[in-house]
Amino acid sequence: MANSPSGETLTERIVRVLETFDTDRTVQTPAEIGRRARLPSSTAHRMVTDLVECGLLERDEDQRVRLGMRLWELALRGSRALRLRQAALPFMERVQARIREHTQLAVVENGETLFVERLSHPKGGANIARVAGRLPLHASSSGLVLLANGPEDLRERVLAGPLEAVSPETVTDPARLRRHLARIRREGVVVAPGSVEGVSTGVAVPVRERPGQVVAALSVVLPRDAPYGPAIEELRAAAAGITAALGAQRP
Amino acid sequence: MANSPSGETLTERIVRVLETFDTDRTVQTPAEIGRRARLPSSTAHRMVTDLVECGLLERDEDQRVRLGMRLWELALRGSRALRLRQAALPFMERVQARIREHTQLAVVENGETLFVERLSHPKGGANIARVAGRLPLHASSSGLVLLANGPEDLRERVLAGPLEAVSPETVTDPARLRRHLARIRREGVVVAPGSVEGVSTGVAVPVRERPGQVVAALSVVLPRDAPYGPAIEELRAAAAGITAALGAQRP
Repeated sequence: MANSPSGETLTERIVRVLETFDTDRTVQTPAEIGRRARLPSSTAHRMVTDLVECGLLERDEDQRVRLGMRLWELALRGSRALRLRQAALPFMERVQARIREHTQLAVVENGETLFVERLSHPKGGANIARVAGRLPLHASSSGLVLLANGPEDLRERVLAGPLEAVSPETVTDPARLRRHLARIRREGVVVAPGSVEGVSTGVAVPVRERPGQVVAALSVVLPRDAPYGPAIEELRAAAAGITAALGAQRP
Repeated sequence: MANSPSGETLTERIVRVLETFDTDRTVQTPAEIGRRARLPSSTAHRMVTDLVECGLLERDEDQRVRLGMRLWELALRGSRALRLRQAALPFMERVQARIREHTQLAVVENGETLFVERLSHPKGGANIARVAGRLPLHASSSGLVLLANGPEDLRERVLAGPLEAVSPETVTDPARLRRHLARIRREGVVVAPGSVEGVSTGVAVPVRERPGQVVAALSVVLPRDAPYGPAIEELRAAAAGITAALGAQRP
């Protein structure tokens, strides 16, 4: 509907405009948006005006544009992510209070790990994951848990490659990764030293909504050589708590 | 651009479709969406297909539709709300750990109070505010702080009414509300017993990004007759911490 000369829908163009914003680029001029979204300047200006009128974008005093609070509200109000993180947050706080390192909740979105919540301890170590940030499924401990417990076709697609090395220690050999995933599925936990950054070890467990149905991964990022036993214990207790909270939410 | 026969832009229609989702209605059929968005059935089906293809909506096994994780990601990645709540979260956790009641962060969005974060204590009392939920500015303690410290034209617009009573104790007399707001501005805190619900007392303080520039309200919801001195002290310390964290984030 409402296709442009290039055959693209207006919805696709709106997504392209929204995609030009990220953590490091929260304010842009309409001209910058046009350039980054590869849209003709007049189209970009018209779309920005349109999106500002609907509140999806907001203009500041300098006529620069940022994402609107209205967009945030619409995206969150009825979302699976909000439901999940509201159920998980009290348990994540407990993990963070005891382990005192970054604590994260992640889901699969379009073949990648998407982090939906992260609590950071002020003195926590290195961690490149961010809320609403992504990493390849085979790299982070969260992704490995999601991949190990996810649908077989997703697993086969990822194993078919290419398997990018996020760090020199990311497992990128398909046969080795397959064995690794089988073990994670069996043990219900992964300890992944250095797979994202050399200085840290990710520890992750699956979060189930119902028996067998893994909906998220709960993880902590420890300094490389920290003992990980207490983290596994805390994560398992928290995951069980989240499962119960999700069950209690269901109508 | 791409106006419909009714003169409405497609962007406005997309917003209307997204607006049909909320906390109590996270999954709908395309027909339900069309009815609630007041769109012809064929239009609603076409738009849903379009939005699913872009990932802004997702279809489940039963062909019902929910908000997409992609929408959540786009809305959060570059948003003011995320920046604010990431700066605020560690301080909110401390308030919640000490006061052990609902702790909330709110901003003004389009003339209303919009809650961008909420930590709930498992044993916390009644509280109708929700993440991505709204309340009128003159009703909740958060809204009163935002209104008292916000731009004068917004304050005059709200004072011009109508002033809806959210509870029997909401201040709806314009002259009394004006005096109330002047006092909140002067004292830098509000204690609002019963203004949203008879059983609870909201306590809120302003959160500044720079001197004079109030960007949010930080609040706790106490049982009606709980002492509020410790809450005020914790909230003020937290607000100062958030201001420092926001300053440290700036490039």
